[in-house]
Amino acid sequence: MVYYSMDLDITFFALSDPTRRAIISKLAKGEMPIMELASPFDMSLPAVSKHIRVLEKAGLLSRRKQGRVYYCRLNARPLREATKWLAFYQQFWDAKLDSLSNFLEE
Amino acid sequence: MVYYSMDLDITFFALSDPTRRAIISKLAKGEMPIMELASPFDMSLPAVSKHIRVLEKAGLLSRRKQGRVYYCRLNARPLREATKWLAFYQQFWDAKLDSLSNFLEE
Repeated sequence: MVYYSMDLDITFFALSDPTRRAIISKLAKGEMPIMELASPFDMSLPAVSKHIRVLEKAGLLSRRKQGRVYYCRLNARPLREATKWLAFYQQFWDAKLDSLSNFLEE
Repeated sequence: MVYYSMDLDITFFALSDPTRRAIISKLAKGEMPIMELASPFDMSLPAVSKHIRVLEKAGLLSRRKQGRVYYCRLNARPLREATKWLAFYQQFWDAKLDSLSNFLEE
């Protein structure tokens, strides 16, 4: 009766933290060394790394090593499923967006 | 430098659980007595009530009492902010959806 999707759990959980959303926002500008990614946050590198691991587990971030530097990159694909889940509910908050669901189904 | 939105934290957290998403899905059909809402879930009423409180805190559900019965109703508005946050990223997962952001801005 009740449909469970583990992926959506992990995606929405990853998005429920402001630091993780800010990391996603920074990576939208392109691949970035982990030190540069971590620099604006008022927390230790291990604390930022913990958030990065949550994003990796959610499939939202991938990491590659070049020389001694780790680069992080955004994988936005899981956000598509989250957006599709939400799209159904737009009919309840704004009638003028009725075709959003159709948009996402096409 | 980093933008924090408490509301988005709470909204995305509320969505990170399959029971809470299923409650939202059921309430999309209309207002419902809490007992009817809780019935399909393989858990105790207090356990479902805990999820309902998380949804209430997120502003996604409201409750009213009529006689001895509590009725629950969906408030989809917070989902709009979540959808708007996600809409920016559609450019990274599918080029054909380029106008989704414009849609939501209109």
